[in-house]
Amino acid sequence: MNTTLEQPISHCDVEIRVRYVETDAMGYLHHSQYFVYFEIGRTELLRANGLCYADMEREGMFYVVARLECRFRAPARYDEVLTLRTATTRVSHVRVDHRYELRRGDLLLAEAASTLALVGRDGRPMPLPDALFVRLVGKPA
Amino acid sequence: MNTTLEQPISHCDVEIRVRYVETDAMGYLHHSQYFVYFEIGRTELLRANGLCYADMEREGMFYVVARLECRFRAPARYDEVLTLRTATTRVSHVRVDHRYELRRGDLLLAEAASTLALVGRDGRPMPLPDALFVRLVGKPA
Amino acid sequence: MNTTLEQPISHCDVEIRVRYVETDAMGYLHHSQYFVYFEIGRTELLRANGLCYADMEREGMFYVVARLECRFRAPARYDEVLTLRTATTRVSHVRVDHRYELRRGDLLLAEAASTLALVGRDGRPMPLPDALFVRLVGKPA
Amino acid sequence: MNTTLEQPISHCDVEIRVRYVETDAMGYLHHSQYFVYFEIGRTELLRANGLCYADMEREGMFYVVARLECRFRAPARYDEVLTLRTATTRVSHVRVDHRYELRRGDLLLAEAASTLALVGRDGRPMPLPDALFVRLVGKPA
Repeated sequence: MNTTLEQPISHCDVEIRVRYVETDAMGYLHHSQYFVYFEIGRTELLRANGLCYADMEREGMFYVVARLECRFRAPARYDEVLTLRTATTRVSHVRVDHRYELRRGDLLLAEAASTLALVGRDGRPMPLPDALFVRLVGKPA
Repeated sequence: MNTTLEQPISHCDVEIRVRYVETDAMGYLHHSQYFVYFEIGRTELLRANGLCYADMEREGMFYVVARLECRFRAPARYDEVLTLRTATTRVSHVRVDHRYELRRGDLLLAEAASTLALVGRDGRPMPLPDALFVRLVGKPA
Repeated sequence: MNTTLEQPISHCDVEIRVRYVETDAMGYLHHSQYFVYFEIGRTELLRANGLCYADMEREGMFYVVARLECRFRAPARYDEVLTLRTATTRVSHVRVDHRYELRRGDLLLAEAASTLALVGRDGRPMPLPDALFVRLVGKPA
Repeated sequence: MNTTLEQPISHCDVEIRVRYVETDAMGYLHHSQYFVYFEIGRTELLRANGLCYADMEREGMFYVVARLECRFRAPARYDEVLTLRTATTRVSHVRVDHRYELRRGDLLLAEAASTLALVGRDGRPMPLPDALFVRLVGKPA
């Protein structure tokens, strides 16, 4: 199922406060840390969809990141409270696409996109089970 | 100055051993950590070009990441020794592009690209000084 | 001003959810990450005392860690919500001592203690200003 | 087997270059990162003793940190090359003690101590196998 960014399949907003350890000598949130925030966004979006990623792993389903892309627009600093919007933009039986927008107030700090694939305990790709697919897109395939 | 990946302006290889802290509950090197490795690659490529990024910062020049993209092909695990090739692929007076290939032996684990911009102490973009440009591309603009 | 742990000068509780990136290949929250949580606890305890550490740094006051000690009692895992109690146990004009207890529900996961010193922009020790001292202990020296 | 620090059971030195991501807004190596370095020291000390921690985990033996203590004497900065000495100071069938000294040239930056316990796949404590004990102390118990 494919969507435009304007009408994502689902999305959620989370607030994240920048930790001191996440800053670097430049005084900014380190660029690698944005991807940690995006992962938090995915966890919370799954939860908003009635899914728990920790349970998924216990059941032998693991999301691996296949592709990441990020454009950094403005820096963030220690103790700032940022708002991350995470949206599911495409779900097929072999991958899930997300988009992300990180803001401080109205200011866009970064926008990003990712593609995840599902793998089993053996690390090999597995198709999304129907029950998971329905949870993610809100209706059967 | 623009180049193809086959003929980068300059490149260098560094070996990096995966640290335990960099792994996650899946048993893999966490995807955000790849960008830390790429940063190490840039530091060492500058050094190979006769530049020291720590000195650049002391002189008031700071590289900020404007764009990152990475495709993850295969996972890495604790204690594996990986080889990262970092290449400068484009240098203009306002940005520097790099490409990256991370391998374990012959196996390609990830390939990536980034765009950096130079900023001053005030965080505002500044053009690359001629001396820096020459160091990076090996000849005047 | 010296106190027992039973009657700290001040304390606060914060809830922290374990992030995926903070786990390691053993499936546990990595031990180095506990110290990141304790730092979050100190930030929030300062805030509860009407202080903002980010403002302190802007005014040229920096806390550096002089000593850390931690006993790890039980592991934590991804997505668990932990409760961290941070207590100021001693404040003098040259150092501040804290104690920490990290729990999941009633289970004690770790207990720790730290000593911080205040330094100026030059990295040299500076005595705690009276106004800061009063905020921390609730009364003049 | 118990030893003094002056005559540790075994020790090794490793050089570690401070990564940019490991610095914080104060411009220093973040204090939580020291414990990551100590973990690297333990991995390399095991290797110097003819042991591979990755193999130990594959065989179902996991070291967990039970106690950590560190005194921070002087800060480190980006790109500095530090020397970490890691020493095994005590080995019994239920725990292993290490001591650490981190230096930049002759300057002592930090000194620390840790106690590890061995656990099995189920997370329960297990006694050190004889073969491991012999490797660590150089002779039978």
